[in-house]
Amino acid sequence: MKIATVQIAPIFGEKEHNLNTIINLINNTECDLIIFPELCTTGYSFADRNETEQYAESSKGDTISILSKMAMEQNKIIILGFAEKDDHQLFNSAAALFPDQNLNRIYRKSHLFYREKFCFDPGDTGFFVINNHDLDVNIGLMICYDWRFPEAARSLGLLGADLIVCPSNLVTDVWHISMPSRALENKVYLACVNRFGTENRNGESLLFKGKSAIYDYNGKILAEAAPDAEQILFADIDPIKTRDKSFNPFNDIFKDRRTDLYHNNSIEIIS
Amino acid sequence: MKIATVQIAPIFGEKEHNLNTIINLINNTECDLIIFPELCTTGYSFADRNETEQYAESSKGDTISILSKMAMEQNKIIILGFAEKDDHQLFNSAAALFPDQNLNRIYRKSHLFYREKFCFDPGDTGFFVINNHDLDVNIGLMICYDWRFPEAARSLGLLGADLIVCPSNLVTDVWHISMPSRALENKVYLACVNRFGTENRNGESLLFKGKSAIYDYNGKILAEAAPDAEQILFADIDPIKTRDKSFNPFNDIFKDRRTDLYHNNSIEIIS
Repeated sequence: MKIATVQIAPIFGEKEHNLNTIINLINNTECDLIIFPELCTTGYSFADRNETEQYAESSKGDTISILSKMAMEQNKIIILGFAEKDDHQLFNSAAALFPDQNLNRIYRKSHLFYREKFCFDPGDTGFFVINNHDLDVNIGLMICYDWRFPEAARSLGLLGADLIVCPSNLVTDVWHISMPSRALENKVYLACVNRFGTENRNGESLLFKGKSAIYDYNGKILAEAAPDAEQILFADIDPIKTRDKSFNPFNDIFKDRRTDLYHNNSIEIIS
Repeated sequence: MKIATVQIAPIFGEKEHNLNTIINLINNTECDLIIFPELCTTGYSFADRNETEQYAESSKGDTISILSKMAMEQNKIIILGFAEKDDHQLFNSAAALFPDQNLNRIYRKSHLFYREKFCFDPGDTGFFVINNHDLDVNIGLMICYDWRFPEAARSLGLLGADLIVCPSNLVTDVWHISMPSRALENKVYLACVNRFGTENRNGESLLFKGKSAIYDYNGKILAEAAPDAEQILFADIDPIKTRDKSFNPFNDIFKDRRTDLYHNNSIEIIS
């Protein structure tokens, strides 16, 4: 299975331009799965909910419909981040679009970063895994700041993900410390698809740091992009290899879990 | 607060020799907290439960009593791994011994590695944090293979740990991918104290890979040892710096957790 991650620099508010860029890249990239960054149709730096609402659209809207049709016609899985409007709710979402449209799913970002809290609602889809029988791959989605919470990738791992796809708009470098661990600790492939470029809005300048990366299930980098350039990474992955979670005759990283001993759901700080 | 990690190569079965080594190092190391590797009084490669039982001793036994007295007399916290016998149960344990003996606690390794499953019972203490008021530090314990489970360090983080201490006998290098992430994702200091040297027993040769490391709460290495030498690492840490889990005005890595969305306690593989 051949996956491609597309590192681009969307232009804020230029939806038609950004969509054309995405369409051209889909048309010209041979692969089974093509992945674009977080909020890649709109840009990132919304001022507030009112502005987000101007640019957001339904998962039944034109953008997702056009791309879904391309997934079907070109027999490619397409995953991209977009600003989603659902009635009065706004989500920082990722669409996973399949040749078989019945498999299409939307993931709504669980952990909101920085000023996103003023522009979006917290995601309500939770974590899920989509099984694509044709390619025999189980795909899980998370978005950007979700990386910081081991529970996100762990949830996807426990649900059976072979590959975690993480559309991102990362403005720090600190994620490089944890992203390979997310792959290793769950024995899954992981594709972090970042954007690059700068947005100057709302009195702030945000530099998106590129360096998109694809990791194997040992946390090893299979491919890594530059910090500041449009770049497509490719990797051939073998999803079946992630499913045996044992690594010697006596240890299995899922079966060895001591769920009887973990503190999960509360903050119990000693004071 | 000055911590010291002691990377040594215990000799299998030579308890008196190993304990003398430990005592000399405690006597000659100026610090507030001194940490030794997993199973450092006995060595690692027990053949089976019968052999473990020959060398294991109670947490009320001579070894721990002698070291506990030293902790009191020298006003040092001492943490070390040892083989613990409790009635007919055997544990791969770590003792945390304080100047105030009332604080002394035993952690029993939760996740057993490889042939440990034939030599020890799975730990039953779970994860806990010890507050030392004199130094104003909250210490949590895990042992070696516990690193692979983000839930272990997460449990300690949520319980209020400022510093995670991880006595180890690591025979791979793969932990270097995750250990810094454990510190970063919980914003805690982390001291991984490994042994070095080789044990040839039970028809197997185990090479312990040293490279003990102390990480700050951003996952940055403060000090790192050689792979194959006796070496003491020192670090000055400021436990209070770990307690504010926010990193900008809007994000806090604990408060941002979406415990409503996480899959924790079950394996739900799609088939």
